[in-house]
Amino acid sequence: METVITIRQAVMAEDEKCAFRVRETLKERKILGVNIIGSPGCGKTTLLEQTAAHIERESPFSFLVIEGDVETARDAQRLAAANVEALQINTKGACHLEAHVIENALQTLGFSSARYRRDLDVIFIENVGNLVCPAEFDLGEDFKVAVSSVPEGADKPLKYPMLFSQAAVVLLTKVDLLPYVKFDKALFARDVKALNPKAPIMELDLTSGAGLESWIAFIAKRLEEKRHVV
Amino acid sequence: METVITIRQAVMAEDEKCAFRVRETLKERKILGVNIIGSPGCGKTTLLEQTAAHIERESPFSFLVIEGDVETARDAQRLAAANVEALQINTKGACHLEAHVIENALQTLGFSSARYRRDLDVIFIENVGNLVCPAEFDLGEDFKVAVSSVPEGADKPLKYPMLFSQAAVVLLTKVDLLPYVKFDKALFARDVKALNPKAPIMELDLTSGAGLESWIAFIAKRLEEKRHVV
Repeated sequence: METVITIRQAVMAEDEKCAFRVRETLKERKILGVNIIGSPGCGKTTLLEQTAAHIERESPFSFLVIEGDVETARDAQRLAAANVEALQINTKGACHLEAHVIENALQTLGFSSARYRRDLDVIFIENVGNLVCPAEFDLGEDFKVAVSSVPEGADKPLKYPMLFSQAAVVLLTKVDLLPYVKFDKALFARDVKALNPKAPIMELDLTSGAGLESWIAFIAKRLEEKRHVV
Repeated sequence: METVITIRQAVMAEDEKCAFRVRETLKERKILGVNIIGSPGCGKTTLLEQTAAHIERESPFSFLVIEGDVETARDAQRLAAANVEALQINTKGACHLEAHVIENALQTLGFSSARYRRDLDVIFIENVGNLVCPAEFDLGEDFKVAVSSVPEGADKPLKYPMLFSQAAVVLLTKVDLLPYVKFDKALFARDVKALNPKAPIMELDLTSGAGLESWIAFIAKRLEEKRHVV
Protein backbone atom coordinates (compact mmCIF):
# COMPACT_ATOMS: atom_id res chain seq x y z
CA MET A 1 0.00 0.00 0.00
CA GLU A 2 2.90 2.32 0.73
CA THR A 3 4.10 2.12 -2.87
CA VAL A 4 0.62 3.01 -4.08
CA ILE A 5 0.56 6.07 -1.87
CA THR A 6 4.01 7.22 -2.95
CA ILE A 7 3.15 6.92 -6.63
CA ARG A 8 -0.18 8.63 -6.08
CA GLN A 9 1.67 11.51 -4.46
CA ALA A 10 4.04 11.72 -7.41
CA VAL A 11 1.14 11.79 -9.89
CA MET A 12 -0.62 14.46 -7.86
CA ALA A 13 2.58 16.50 -7.59
CA GLU A 14 2.86 16.41 -11.39
CA ASP A 15 -0.71 17.66 -11.66
CA GLU A 16 0.02 20.44 -9.17
CA LYS A 17 2.66 21.70 -11.58
CA CYS A 18 0.03 21.81 -14.33
CA ALA A 19 -2.30 23.71 -11.98
CA PHE A 20 0.50 26.16 -11.23
CA ARG A 21 1.09 26.79 -14.93
CA VAL A 22 -2.64 27.24 -15.62
CA ARG A 23 -2.85 29.72 -12.72
CA GLU A 24 0.19 31.65 -13.98
CA THR A 25 -1.27 31.88 -17.49
CA LEU A 26 -4.60 33.15 -16.18
CA LYS A 27 -2.82 35.64 -13.93
CA GLU A 28 -0.70 37.01 -16.75
CA ARG A 29 -3.78 37.51 -18.93
CA LYS A 30 -5.93 38.81 -16.05
CA ILE A 31 -8.51 36.16 -16.83
CA LEU A 32 -10.66 34.81 -14.01
CA GLY A 33 -10.81 30.99 -13.80
CA VAL A 34 -13.91 29.61 -12.06
CA ASN A 35 -14.35 25.91 -11.24
CA ILE A 36 -18.07 25.05 -10.95
CA ILE A 37 -18.86 21.89 -8.99
CA GLY A 38 -22.18 20.23 -8.12
CA SER A 39 -24.27 17.06 -8.37
CA PRO A 40 -25.58 15.70 -11.66
CA GLY A 41 -28.55 17.81 -12.71
CA CYS A 42 -28.11 20.58 -10.13
CA GLY A 43 -28.24 23.24 -12.84
CA LYS A 44 -24.60 23.95 -13.75
CA THR A 45 -25.16 24.17 -17.51
CA THR A 46 -28.40 26.10 -17.07
CA LEU A 47 -26.53 28.57 -14.86
CA LEU A 48 -24.09 29.22 -17.70
CA GLU A 49 -26.84 29.48 -20.33
CA GLN A 50 -28.71 31.96 -18.14
CA THR A 51 -25.54 33.89 -17.33
CA ALA A 52 -24.96 34.35 -21.07
CA ALA A 53 -28.54 35.49 -21.61
CA HIS A 54 -28.42 37.98 -18.72
CA ILE A 55 -25.13 39.62 -19.59
CA GLU A 56 -25.95 40.02 -23.25
CA ARG A 57 -27.14 43.61 -22.94
CA GLU A 58 -24.86 45.13 -20.33
CA SER A 59 -21.93 42.84 -21.04
CA PRO A 60 -20.04 43.17 -17.74
CA PHE A 61 -17.66 40.44 -18.87
CA SER A 62 -17.07 37.95 -21.69
CA PHE A 63 -16.54 34.26 -21.03
CA LEU A 64 -15.98 30.83 -22.47
CA VAL A 65 -16.65 27.41 -20.95
CA ILE A 66 -14.58 24.28 -20.55
CA GLU A 67 -17.22 21.60 -20.22
CA GLY A 68 -16.40 18.35 -18.37
CA ASP A 69 -18.58 15.26 -18.75
CA VAL A 70 -18.01 11.54 -18.53
CA GLU A 71 -19.71 11.13 -21.90
CA THR A 72 -21.71 13.07 -24.54
CA ALA A 73 -21.30 16.57 -25.97
CA ARG A 74 -24.79 17.63 -24.93
CA ASP A 75 -23.74 20.39 -22.57
CA ALA A 76 -21.39 22.04 -25.07
CA GLN A 77 -24.17 21.79 -27.69
CA ARG A 78 -26.60 23.49 -25.30
CA LEU A 79 -24.08 26.27 -24.69
CA ALA A 80 -23.34 26.66 -28.40
CA ALA A 81 -27.07 27.12 -28.94
CA ALA A 82 -26.89 29.92 -26.36
CA ASN A 83 -24.01 31.50 -28.33
CA VAL A 84 -21.44 30.54 -25.71
CA GLU A 85 -18.06 29.28 -26.86
CA ALA A 86 -17.57 25.91 -25.15
CA LEU A 87 -14.98 23.18 -25.39
CA GLN A 88 -16.34 19.75 -24.47
CA ILE A 89 -14.04 17.38 -22.57
CA ASN A 90 -15.16 13.76 -22.20
CA THR A 91 -13.40 12.09 -19.30
CA LYS A 92 -14.46 8.59 -20.49
CA GLY A 93 -15.14 7.25 -17.03
CA ALA A 94 -13.15 9.63 -14.84
CA CYS A 95 -15.23 11.31 -12.18
CA HIS A 96 -13.49 14.70 -12.14
CA LEU A 97 -11.32 17.03 -14.18
CA GLU A 98 -7.57 17.39 -13.52
CA ALA A 99 -5.24 20.30 -14.20
CA HIS A 100 -3.42 18.65 -17.10
CA VAL A 101 -6.77 18.37 -18.88
CA ILE A 102 -7.31 22.11 -18.41
CA GLU A 103 -3.79 22.88 -19.61
CA ASN A 104 -4.46 20.82 -22.77
CA ALA A 105 -7.83 22.51 -23.19
CA LEU A 106 -6.21 25.94 -23.16
CA GLN A 107 -3.83 24.77 -25.88
CA THR A 108 -6.70 23.32 -27.91
CA LEU A 109 -8.50 26.64 -27.62
CA GLY A 110 -5.44 28.28 -29.16
CA PHE A 111 -5.01 30.21 -25.97
CA SER A 112 -1.60 31.54 -26.90
CA SER A 113 -2.97 33.18 -30.02
CA ALA A 114 -3.69 36.90 -30.23
CA ARG A 115 -7.41 36.13 -30.24
CA TYR A 116 -7.63 35.82 -26.47
CA ARG A 117 -5.33 38.71 -25.70
CA ARG A 118 -7.94 41.40 -25.33
CA ASP A 119 -11.45 40.18 -25.22
CA LEU A 120 -11.73 37.25 -22.81
CA ASP A 121 -12.47 37.92 -19.15
CA VAL A 122 -13.64 34.70 -17.55
CA ILE A 123 -13.20 30.96 -18.12
CA PHE A 124 -15.89 28.89 -16.44
CA ILE A 125 -14.93 25.26 -15.95
CA GLU A 126 -18.02 23.09 -15.55
CA ASN A 127 -16.71 20.06 -13.69
CA VAL A 128 -18.13 16.51 -13.93
CA GLY A 129 -21.43 16.21 -12.02
CA ASN A 130 -20.15 14.89 -8.68
CA LEU A 131 -19.98 16.35 -5.16
CA VAL A 132 -16.99 14.32 -4.00
CA CYS A 133 -13.92 13.92 -6.20
CA PRO A 134 -13.81 17.24 -8.12
CA ALA A 135 -13.33 19.07 -4.80
CA GLU A 136 -9.98 17.31 -4.32
CA PHE A 137 -8.33 18.65 -7.46
CA ASP A 138 -6.81 22.07 -8.02
CA LEU A 139 -7.29 22.99 -11.67
CA GLY A 140 -5.42 26.29 -11.42
CA GLU A 141 -8.70 28.17 -10.96
CA ASP A 142 -9.11 31.36 -8.93
CA PHE A 143 -11.88 29.80 -6.88
CA LYS A 144 -14.44 27.01 -6.72
CA VAL A 145 -18.22 27.44 -6.80
CA ALA A 146 -20.47 24.92 -5.05
CA VAL A 147 -23.86 24.41 -6.68
CA SER A 148 -26.53 22.62 -4.66
CA SER A 149 -30.16 22.31 -5.73
CA VAL A 150 -33.22 22.39 -3.49
CA PRO A 151 -34.56 18.92 -4.43
CA GLU A 152 -31.27 17.32 -3.34
CA GLY A 153 -32.13 18.20 0.25
CA ALA A 154 -30.63 20.45 2.92
CA ASP A 155 -28.28 17.82 4.37
CA LYS A 156 -25.70 18.00 1.58
CA PRO A 157 -23.12 20.43 3.08
CA LEU A 158 -22.23 18.19 6.04
CA LYS A 159 -22.37 15.05 3.90
CA TYR A 160 -19.97 16.52 1.33
CA PRO A 161 -17.92 18.90 3.51
CA MET A 162 -14.80 19.21 1.35
CA LEU A 163 -16.52 21.08 -1.45
CA PHE A 164 -18.65 23.30 0.78
CA SER A 165 -15.72 24.28 3.00
CA GLN A 166 -13.57 25.31 -0.01
CA ALA A 167 -16.09 27.15 -2.18
CA ALA A 168 -15.86 30.94 -2.53
CA VAL A 169 -19.63 31.05 -3.06
CA VAL A 170 -22.49 28.56 -2.64
CA LEU A 171 -25.32 28.70 -5.17
CA LEU A 172 -28.62 27.24 -4.02
CA THR A 173 -30.49 26.50 -7.25
CA LYS A 174 -34.09 25.49 -8.07
CA VAL A 175 -35.55 27.61 -5.26
CA ASP A 176 -38.73 27.67 -7.38
CA LEU A 177 -39.25 24.07 -6.17
CA LEU A 178 -39.29 25.09 -2.47
CA PRO A 179 -43.12 24.92 -2.30
CA TYR A 180 -43.10 21.30 -3.52
CA VAL A 181 -40.29 19.61 -1.58
CA LYS A 182 -39.07 19.44 2.00
CA PHE A 183 -36.06 21.69 2.39
CA ASP A 184 -34.85 23.25 5.63
CA LYS A 185 -33.23 26.50 4.50
CA ALA A 186 -32.11 27.45 8.01
CA LEU A 187 -30.32 24.11 8.42
CA PHE A 188 -28.64 24.48 5.03
CA ALA A 189 -27.44 28.01 5.88
CA ARG A 190 -26.25 26.99 9.35
CA ASP A 191 -24.27 24.00 8.04
CA VAL A 192 -22.65 26.01 5.23
CA LYS A 193 -21.72 28.73 7.71
CA ALA A 194 -20.22 26.21 10.13
CA LEU A 195 -18.02 24.79 7.35
CA ASN A 196 -17.25 28.05 5.61
CA PRO A 197 -18.14 31.28 7.43
CA LYS A 198 -17.07 33.56 4.56
CA ALA A 199 -18.89 32.03 1.60
CA PRO A 200 -22.10 33.81 0.66
CA ILE A 201 -25.13 31.68 -0.21
CA MET A 202 -27.01 32.90 -3.26
CA GLU A 203 -30.50 31.64 -4.04
CA LEU A 204 -31.23 31.16 -7.72
CA ASP A 205 -34.30 30.35 -9.75
CA LEU A 206 -32.86 29.57 -13.15
CA THR A 207 -36.26 29.27 -14.81
CA SER A 208 -37.17 32.93 -14.10
CA GLY A 209 -33.60 34.20 -13.68
CA ALA A 210 -34.29 35.47 -10.15
CA GLY A 211 -31.05 35.87 -8.22
CA LEU A 212 -28.77 35.93 -11.25
CA GLU A 213 -27.82 39.59 -10.70
CA SER A 214 -26.02 38.70 -7.44
CA TRP A 215 -24.09 35.93 -9.12
CA ILE A 216 -23.09 38.12 -12.07
CA ALA A 217 -22.10 40.97 -9.72
CA PHE A 218 -20.00 38.51 -7.69
CA ILE A 219 -18.09 37.38 -10.79
CA ALA A 220 -17.67 40.96 -12.04
CA LYS A 221 -16.30 42.02 -8.63
CA ARG A 222 -13.81 39.15 -8.46
CA LEU A 223 -12.69 39.93 -12.01
CA GLU A 224 -12.20 43.58 -11.08
CA GLU A 225 -10.16 42.59 -8.03
CA LYS A 226 -7.98 40.31 -10.14
CA ARG A 227 -7.33 43.08 -12.65
CA HIS A 228 -6.07 45.35 -9.88
CA VAL A 229 -3.64 42.88 -8.37
CA VAL A 230 -0.17 43.97 -9.43
CA MET B 1 2.42 5.70 -15.40
CA GLU B 2 2.79 1.99 -16.15
CA THR B 3 3.74 1.26 -12.54
CA VAL B 4 0.64 3.10 -11.34
CA ILE B 5 -1.56 1.02 -13.60
CA THR B 6 0.04 -2.25 -12.51
CA ILE B 7 -0.42 -1.44 -8.83
CA ARG B 8 -3.95 -0.26 -9.42
CA GLN B 9 -4.69 -3.58 -11.09
CA ALA B 10 -3.24 -5.43 -8.09
CA VAL B 11 -5.34 -3.44 -5.65
CA MET B 12 -8.45 -4.03 -7.74
CA ALA B 13 -7.67 -7.75 -8.00
CA GLU B 14 -7.45 -7.89 -4.20
CA ASP B 15 -10.83 -6.21 -3.96
CA GLU B 16 -12.30 -8.66 -6.47
CA LYS B 17 -11.38 -11.45 -4.05
CA CYS B 18 -13.31 -9.64 -1.31
CA ALA B 19 -16.28 -9.29 -3.66
CA PHE B 20 -16.09 -12.99 -4.43
CA ARG B 21 -16.14 -13.88 -0.71
CA VAL B 22 -19.07 -11.52 -0.03
CA ARG B 23 -20.98 -13.08 -2.92
CA GLU B 24 -20.25 -16.61 -1.68
CA THR B 25 -21.43 -15.71 1.84
CA LEU B 26 -24.66 -14.21 0.53
CA LYS B 27 -25.21 -17.21 -1.71
CA GLU B 28 -24.73 -19.69 1.09
CA ARG B 29 -27.22 -17.84 3.30
CA LYS B 30 -29.66 -17.20 0.41
CA ILE B 31 -29.56 -13.50 1.19
CA LEU B 32 -30.07 -11.03 -1.62
CA GLY B 33 -27.44 -8.25 -1.84
CA VAL B 34 -28.61 -5.08 -3.59
CA ASN B 35 -26.25 -2.18 -4.42
CA ILE B 36 -28.22 1.08 -4.71
CA ILE B 37 -26.50 3.86 -6.67
CA GLY B 38 -27.62 7.39 -7.51
CA SER B 39 -26.81 11.09 -7.27
CA PRO B 40 -26.73 12.98 -3.98
CA GLY B 41 -30.30 13.64 -2.93
CA CYS B 42 -32.00 11.41 -5.52
CA GLY B 43 -34.02 9.64 -2.81
CA LYS B 44 -32.00 6.53 -1.90
CA THR B 45 -32.54 6.78 1.86
CA THR B 46 -36.18 7.77 1.43
CA LEU B 47 -36.65 4.70 -0.79
CA LEU B 48 -35.41 2.49 2.05
CA GLU B 49 -37.52 4.29 4.69
CA GLN B 50 -40.60 3.90 2.50
CA THR B 51 -39.78 0.28 1.68
CA ALA B 52 -39.71 -0.44 5.43
CA ALA B 53 -43.03 1.34 5.98
CA HIS B 54 -44.71 -0.48 3.07
CA ILE B 55 -43.60 -4.00 3.94
CA GLU B 56 -44.48 -3.66 7.62
CA ARG B 57 -47.87 -5.32 7.29
CA GLU B 58 -47.37 -8.02 4.67
CA SER B 59 -43.69 -8.52 5.41
CA PRO B 60 -42.61 -10.10 2.10
CA PHE B 61 -38.97 -9.92 3.23
CA SER B 62 -36.80 -8.61 6.05
CA PHE B 63 -33.77 -6.41 5.40
CA LEU B 64 -30.92 -4.42 6.83
CA VAL B 65 -28.93 -1.58 5.30
CA ILE B 66 -25.24 -0.86 4.89
CA GLU B 67 -25.16 2.90 4.55
CA GLY B 68 -22.25 4.55 2.72
CA ASP B 69 -21.55 8.27 3.09
CA VAL B 70 -18.46 10.44 2.88
CA GLU B 71 -19.36 11.95 6.26
CA THR B 72 -22.16 12.03 8.90
CA ALA B 73 -24.39 9.30 10.32
CA ARG B 74 -27.58 11.07 9.29
CA ASP B 75 -28.83 8.40 6.94
CA ALA B 76 -28.39 5.56 9.44
CA GLN B 77 -30.14 7.72 12.04
CA ARG B 78 -33.04 8.30 9.65
CA LEU B 79 -33.30 4.54 9.05
CA ALA B 80 -33.06 3.74 12.76
CA ALA B 81 -35.99 6.11 13.30
CA ALA B 82 -37.89 4.02 10.73
CA ASN B 83 -37.00 0.84 12.68
CA VAL B 84 -34.52 -0.31 10.06
CA GLU B 85 -31.25 -1.85 11.21
CA ALA B 86 -28.50 0.14 9.50
CA LEU B 87 -24.73 0.19 9.74
CA GLN B 88 -23.20 3.53 8.81
CA ILE B 89 -19.91 3.54 6.91
CA ASN B 90 -18.09 6.87 6.54
CA THR B 91 -15.65 6.75 3.65
CA LYS B 92 -13.89 9.97 4.84
CA GLY B 93 -13.39 11.37 1.39
CA ALA B 94 -13.71 8.29 -0.79
CA CYS B 95 -16.37 8.62 -3.45
CA HIS B 96 -17.61 5.01 -3.51
CA LEU B 97 -17.76 1.82 -1.46
CA GLU B 98 -15.42 -1.10 -2.12
CA ALA B 99 -15.88 -4.81 -1.44
CA HIS B 100 -13.42 -4.96 1.47
CA VAL B 101 -15.56 -2.36 3.24
CA ILE B 102 -18.62 -4.58 2.77
CA GLU B 103 -16.72 -7.64 3.98
CA ASN B 104 -15.72 -5.72 7.13
CA ALA B 105 -19.27 -4.47 7.56
CA LEU B 106 -20.61 -8.03 7.52
CA GLN B 107 -18.11 -8.91 10.25
CA THR B 108 -19.07 -5.84 12.29
CA LEU B 109 -22.71 -6.86 12.00
CA GLY B 110 -21.75 -10.21 13.54
CA PHE B 111 -22.83 -11.85 10.35
CA SER B 112 -21.41 -15.22 11.29
CA SER B 113 -23.54 -15.38 14.43
CA ALA B 114 -26.69 -17.46 14.62
CA ARG B 115 -28.77 -14.29 14.63
CA TYR B 116 -28.66 -13.90 10.85
CA ARG B 117 -29.14 -17.58 10.06
CA ARG B 118 -32.88 -17.59 9.70
CA ASP B 119 -34.49 -14.20 9.58
CA LEU B 120 -32.58 -11.95 7.18
CA ASP B 121 -33.57 -11.88 3.51
CA VAL B 122 -32.06 -8.80 1.91
CA ILE B 123 -29.08 -6.51 2.47
CA PHE B 124 -29.47 -3.14 0.80
CA ILE B 125 -26.19 -1.31 0.31
CA GLU B 126 -26.77 2.41 -0.10
CA ASN B 127 -23.70 3.60 -1.95
CA VAL B 128 -22.13 7.07 -1.72
CA GLY B 129 -24.19 9.65 -3.62
CA ASN B 130 -22.37 9.64 -6.96
CA LEU B 131 -23.31 8.52 -10.49
CA VAL B 132 -19.77 7.79 -11.64
CA CYS B 133 -17.35 5.86 -9.44
CA PRO B 134 -19.65 3.47 -7.53
CA ALA B 135 -20.63 1.85 -10.85
CA GLU B 136 -17.04 0.67 -11.33
CA PHE B 137 -16.85 -1.45 -8.19
CA ASP B 138 -18.25 -4.93 -7.64
CA LEU B 139 -19.24 -5.22 -3.97
CA GLY B 140 -20.31 -8.85 -4.21
CA GLU B 141 -23.94 -7.80 -4.70
CA ASP B 142 -26.53 -9.72 -6.71
CA PHE B 143 -27.34 -6.66 -8.76
CA LYS B 144 -27.10 -2.87 -8.94
CA VAL B 145 -30.05 -0.48 -8.85
CA ALA B 146 -29.81 2.89 -10.60
CA VAL B 147 -31.80 5.68 -8.97
CA SER B 148 -32.39 8.84 -10.99
CA SER B 149 -34.67 11.67 -9.91
CA VAL B 150 -36.87 13.81 -12.15
CA PRO B 151 -35.30 17.19 -11.20
CA GLU B 152 -31.86 15.93 -12.30
CA GLY B 153 -33.11 15.94 -15.88
CA ALA B 154 -33.67 13.30 -18.55
CA ASP B 155 -30.16 13.45 -20.00
CA LYS B 156 -28.47 11.48 -17.23
CA PRO B 157 -28.43 7.93 -18.73
CA LEU B 158 -26.20 8.84 -21.69
CA LYS B 159 -24.04 11.13 -19.55
CA TYR B 160 -23.41 8.38 -16.98
CA PRO B 161 -23.72 5.26 -19.15
CA MET B 162 -21.75 2.81 -17.01
CA LEU B 163 -24.30 2.74 -14.21
CA PHE B 164 -27.37 2.72 -16.43
CA SER B 165 -26.03 -0.06 -18.63
CA GLN B 166 -25.28 -2.32 -15.64
CA ALA B 167 -28.35 -1.80 -13.47
CA ALA B 168 -30.93 -4.60 -13.12
CA VAL B 169 -33.63 -1.97 -12.59
CA VAL B 170 -33.85 1.81 -13.01
CA LEU B 171 -35.90 3.74 -10.47
CA LEU B 172 -37.16 7.13 -11.63
CA THR B 173 -37.92 8.99 -8.38
CA LYS B 174 -39.70 12.27 -7.58
CA VAL B 175 -42.25 11.85 -10.37
CA ASP B 176 -44.48 14.09 -8.23
CA LEU B 177 -42.27 16.97 -9.46
CA LEU B 178 -43.03 16.28 -13.15
CA PRO B 179 -45.57 19.15 -13.32
CA TYR B 180 -42.95 21.64 -12.09
CA VAL B 181 -39.79 20.81 -14.05
CA LYS B 182 -38.81 20.07 -17.64
CA PHE B 183 -38.33 16.34 -18.01
CA ASP B 184 -38.62 14.38 -21.25
CA LYS B 185 -39.82 10.94 -20.11
CA ALA B 186 -39.74 9.49 -23.63
CA LEU B 187 -36.10 10.54 -24.04
CA PHE B 188 -35.16 9.07 -20.67
CA ALA B 189 -36.88 5.76 -21.51
CA ARG B 190 -35.32 5.62 -24.98
CA ASP B 191 -31.79 6.27 -23.68
CA VAL B 192 -32.11 3.70 -20.86
CA LYS B 193 -33.41 1.14 -23.35
CA ALA B 194 -30.55 1.83 -25.76
CA LEU B 195 -28.01 1.23 -23.00
CA ASN B 196 -29.81 -1.60 -21.26
CA PRO B 197 -32.75 -3.20 -23.07
CA LYS B 198 -33.65 -5.56 -20.23
CA ALA B 199 -33.82 -3.19 -17.24
CA PRO B 200 -37.35 -2.13 -16.32
CA ILE B 201 -37.92 1.53 -15.44
CA MET B 202 -40.10 2.02 -12.37
CA GLU B 203 -41.63 5.41 -11.60
CA LEU B 204 -41.79 6.27 -7.92
CA ASP B 205 -43.34 9.05 -5.89
CA LEU B 206 -41.77 8.54 -2.48
CA THR B 207 -43.93 11.19 -0.83
CA SER B 208 -47.18 9.30 -1.54
CA GLY B 209 -45.61 5.86 -1.95
CA ALA B 210 -47.02 5.48 -5.47
CA GLY B 211 -45.06 2.87 -7.40
CA LEU B 212 -43.50 1.18 -4.38
CA GLU B 213 -45.46 -2.05 -4.96
CA SER B 214 -43.58 -2.71 -8.21
CA TRP B 215 -40.23 -2.17 -6.52
CA ILE B 216 -41.11 -4.42 -3.58
CA ALA B 217 -42.46 -7.09 -5.91
CA PHE B 218 -39.25 -6.90 -7.94
CA ILE B 219 -37.10 -7.47 -4.83
CA ALA B 220 -39.37 -10.28 -3.60
CA LYS B 221 -39.18 -11.99 -7.00
CA ARG B 222 -35.39 -11.79 -7.19
CA LEU B 223 -35.18 -13.13 -3.63
CA GLU B 224 -37.46 -16.03 -4.56
CA GLU B 225 -35.31 -16.81 -7.61
CA LYS B 226 -32.15 -16.79 -5.50
CA ARG B 227 -33.70 -19.16 -2.99
CA HIS B 228 -34.45 -21.66 -5.75
CA VAL B 229 -30.99 -21.68 -7.24
CA VAL B 230 -29.36 -24.93 -6.19
